[in-house]
Amino acid sequence: MTQRFQTVALIGKYQSPDVAESVLRLAEFLRGRGLSVLIEQGTASSIGAGSGFPPATYDEVGARADLAVVLGGDGTMLNTARRLAEHEVPLVGVNQGRLGFLTDVARDDALERIGEILDGRYTAESRSMLDAEVLRGGQRVFQTLALNDVVVNKGDLGRMIEFDVAIDGEFVYTQRSDGMIVCTPTGSTAYALSSNGPILHPSVGGIAIVPLCPHALTARPVTLPDSCRIDINLLPPHDARVHFDGQARFDARAGDCVRITRSALQVRLLHPEGYSYFAMLREKLHWSAIPRHS
Amino acid sequence: MTQRFQTVALIGKYQSPDVAESVLRLAEFLRGRGLSVLIEQGTASSIGAGSGFPPATYDEVGARADLAVVLGGDGTMLNTARRLAEHEVPLVGVNQGRLGFLTDVARDDALERIGEILDGRYTAESRSMLDAEVLRGGQRVFQTLALNDVVVNKGDLGRMIEFDVAIDGEFVYTQRSDGMIVCTPTGSTAYALSSNGPILHPSVGGIAIVPLCPHALTARPVTLPDSCRIDINLLPPHDARVHFDGQARFDARAGDCVRITRSALQVRLLHPEGYSYFAMLREKLHWSAIPRHS
Amino acid sequence: MTQRFQTVALIGKYQSPDVAESVLRLAEFLRGRGLSVLIEQGTASSIGAGSGFPPATYDEVGARADLAVVLGGDGTMLNTARRLAEHEVPLVGVNQGRLGFLTDVARDDALERIGEILDGRYTAESRSMLDAEVLRGGQRVFQTLALNDVVVNKGDLGRMIEFDVAIDGEFVYTQRSDGMIVCTPTGSTAYALSSNGPILHPSVGGIAIVPLCPHALTARPVTLPDSCRIDINLLPPHDARVHFDGQARFDARAGDCVRITRSALQVRLLHPEGYSYFAMLREKLHWSAIPRHS
Amino acid sequence: MTQRFQTVALIGKYQSPDVAESVLRLAEFLRGRGLSVLIEQGTASSIGAGSGFPPATYDEVGARADLAVVLGGDGTMLNTARRLAEHEVPLVGVNQGRLGFLTDVARDDALERIGEILDGRYTAESRSMLDAEVLRGGQRVFQTLALNDVVVNKGDLGRMIEFDVAIDGEFVYTQRSDGMIVCTPTGSTAYALSSNGPILHPSVGGIAIVPLCPHALTARPVTLPDSCRIDINLLPPHDARVHFDGQARFDARAGDCVRITRSALQVRLLHPEGYSYFAMLREKLHWSAIPRHS
Repeated sequence: MTQRFQTVALIGKYQSPDVAESVLRLAEFLRGRGLSVLIEQGTASSIGAGSGFPPATYDEVGARADLAVVLGGDGTMLNTARRLAEHEVPLVGVNQGRLGFLTDVARDDALERIGEILDGRYTAESRSMLDAEVLRGGQRVFQTLALNDVVVNKGDLGRMIEFDVAIDGEFVYTQRSDGMIVCTPTGSTAYALSSNGPILHPSVGGIAIVPLCPHALTARPVTLPDSCRIDINLLPPHDARVHFDGQARFDARAGDCVRITRSALQVRLLHPEGYSYFAMLREKLHWSAIPRHS
Repeated sequence: MTQRFQTVALIGKYQSPDVAESVLRLAEFLRGRGLSVLIEQGTASSIGAGSGFPPATYDEVGARADLAVVLGGDGTMLNTARRLAEHEVPLVGVNQGRLGFLTDVARDDALERIGEILDGRYTAESRSMLDAEVLRGGQRVFQTLALNDVVVNKGDLGRMIEFDVAIDGEFVYTQRSDGMIVCTPTGSTAYALSSNGPILHPSVGGIAIVPLCPHALTARPVTLPDSCRIDINLLPPHDARVHFDGQARFDARAGDCVRITRSALQVRLLHPEGYSYFAMLREKLHWSAIPRHS
Repeated sequence: MTQRFQTVALIGKYQSPDVAESVLRLAEFLRGRGLSVLIEQGTASSIGAGSGFPPATYDEVGARADLAVVLGGDGTMLNTARRLAEHEVPLVGVNQGRLGFLTDVARDDALERIGEILDGRYTAESRSMLDAEVLRGGQRVFQTLALNDVVVNKGDLGRMIEFDVAIDGEFVYTQRSDGMIVCTPTGSTAYALSSNGPILHPSVGGIAIVPLCPHALTARPVTLPDSCRIDINLLPPHDARVHFDGQARFDARAGDCVRITRSALQVRLLHPEGYSYFAMLREKLHWSAIPRHS
Repeated sequence: MTQRFQTVALIGKYQSPDVAESVLRLAEFLRGRGLSVLIEQGTASSIGAGSGFPPATYDEVGARADLAVVLGGDGTMLNTARRLAEHEVPLVGVNQGRLGFLTDVARDDALERIGEILDGRYTAESRSMLDAEVLRGGQRVFQTLALNDVVVNKGDLGRMIEFDVAIDGEFVYTQRSDGMIVCTPTGSTAYALSSNGPILHPSVGGIAIVPLCPHALTARPVTLPDSCRIDINLLPPHDARVHFDGQARFDARAGDCVRITRSALQVRLLHPEGYSYFAMLREKLHWSAIPRHS
């Protein structure tokens, strides 16, 4: 089942004038196909005035566009996904340099691939997100979404922190470590991978908890069902920095609870025909298609 | 929903006369509650004659028992699970020494805990199994079930082997390594854990592939959805030993394909009330409930 | 060859009044044996006045004592080692709770063990230290010693940092990671162990470099000969926090070079007779003396 | 100090006729420079008769050659090193495909590089070897050398084995695992690296013990001083296969002791000028010289 697109939004890497050419070329291409084009406001101002395409806030993009093309790296995709999540606008990622885990259209092929997608030749895929909140004395003091991960990290002091982990209200353990990564399958190939976390295929209904430099050598990553509620309770006197997709940040205090569940919202990614998750892993992780003969 | 039990089978650790006392004590206890008791044939002969309880083959146990109590370690549970899988007899594990991942009733508490289970005070849990087959020239030459894992291991020569991995028919990579572990969530805390595999909660619908000493440092464990078909194709001249739950074994030849899917069968485990998967992990992995102050 | 002790300094855990009793008991014991006793100034003020034993600065301790007994945990030992390094006063560590890697005399046995050491019944061991400096525009802007490790860590922003590593002036690689741990054999069982670093026996003449959550999965720990000079050059715009034994800290800027060599100074540790490095590892890492039968 | 070479031996990859051309070309080149050339007997027969160069056994090579050029991969170098060890003939490795850890001269540059080495433009380096023996009831039943590693591996049954480790006669721990790798710095980048072992620079005076899939998660690799004696005692009923550089093999029985020390012999490697250990690591481990921008 394909979808008919009428209004396409273009979103460029934050404060990067060098995407201007790619954005404008794509905008002209889309106009040439009779589509309405919106350029995200920050992108519009970053690439200069006089483009002749209307700038739009993320909310306007969410309300009006039925496709958003993101030109940048994985960071730009993460940011866009979080901002447009409640509008459920499908996303396509065009990388501006190296292939990304989320930006699988190469810049040089962009017009051709986007054209194919507009013709309905694409694969759609849903990615789960995390709903994260910080509770203080029982009150929610912060709330946000994450597509990759929530990272509870040692704070300003730079020393190990100590916290309890509870799953669905049941105590699991007390951990001393540099922190904890809680990630989706999408995030399993990002920061979590650097910390010995497991790769989770996007179709696995799981959330991984991955300790950062744990004091106890037996503290191993665990993949939990994505129906569960994960509470990380900071034990006094330890406070922590909490990072969401490496973009938003909240300074949590001793006694705070960082609560993570799977969000009801999902990100819808469109991939050009022929996309393969495993081919992408092979490319990004330098897996050999043919064996090394040493 | 509780279940009314009428016939209970007792299965002891293979060729271990020292479980005799536990088996007989439990058999008497069950008879005292008016239940029919079967003793698995090998167990009966191992613990000596004259017990007054009828011996039964695994097939007879499968046909007649509505509960099987296993007295031994995790190995005994694995063996019983594979043999009774198609009969769907629920299992309870009574460890005869240390707590096991699957044998969560302590020997000393056995009568009391089994009594509670007979009264309907238990938690039931389903565990997924793997269906494994070996294909040679397109023909199936071996087939079995595994509750923990299928391990494709270097053969007699003791050298690294080389194989292709395909998921649902799609080539993933060529790997040179000592082998590959394919495991269920249940098996994720067994051999796979020694090889840096991820812990998978039993409710996660996943199967993990965990390389054994891979030549390429980027060959990391991957958790796949349990709906997928995993093919491991042995590249000539490499042959391999394939182990199933560390119990059955098949010598696969160069060119063979080891094919693994989730089985349609599941193992039903009954746990005494108060059972907790996380408490079991904490105990087995020596996770501190309270922090170490170094 | 044993050593005759005349003046013994006592050094307690920083700002910990609860070591008062242990310190005073030991001081009386030493006075009873006819020895001169110095109490480190901070310790003296922390445990209260009127003890009748002269307080002394670290420099005075260094100049006058021929043995320093440290009462605390490994952190107290690290601090003392760094402060007394140039005076080469031998150290004995008395743990005030759990056994430490460096504090191997148990509090309850302290009088007996210290007595034995005074009688010449001890094992002496030298531990290497690191000499660390930060260079900015060719000028040294910071310098200190470390017994465990020098940790170049991501700075305030909490994002990965990027740096070049050079050994003896030869470029090794550019790394993106959360940072790098450079550790002695003594430090190999501390923070580095949490980051998958190798354990180095204290007699190995090596320094380990251990990446913290490296972006590239092939960035593995490397043990270098301790005769080498290790330069970590922060690539703009990345700045870093540098921690020394988890105690001193320096905020390094983009472009700075953190230079590490083995110090000409060593720490001399005295252990009671019967001390064993492997027994200590076994205890701290929960290695089984007898096998687990699962 | 350079060395004047008069007799050069050529040693090709075992039973590989395809090195014939390289061997003969190099032989002619050496004859053209007025040197005596020996061709290792197996190599001579493998590349065919009529070459006009005298075949020589390894012992003859050892007695007469003052340089041996090895044409093959790392396996060929390991084999040659073990066979010529007592003769102390310096070795140069010419790889016949991919760069190896030990074969650092590229085939295409071979004449030029070997010419430079003959002119005295080279770097010499010594690599430590292991002396391994198997003791049974106090008697030595096997003895050999290894340049890379001694691997005590699970035997024919394919199950975990259990053994005690003792260092210089002191018990360290009882381990249950798939086995243990004992490696030199040279071997630290071979099999041990696949099993999470530490990289040891060749100048570090250490021997690493690296557990293979250990049952206990806290069983970590340890680097020991190379002056120590390592005993691995197989606990009944466990027997093991012991591999030496992946080339020789011995089937050890329950109760046997595998004893490993640093050999008094060393391998002398000659590298062309400009050789760099770190450049080799960078190439083999795919370390980026310049950072990846994801």
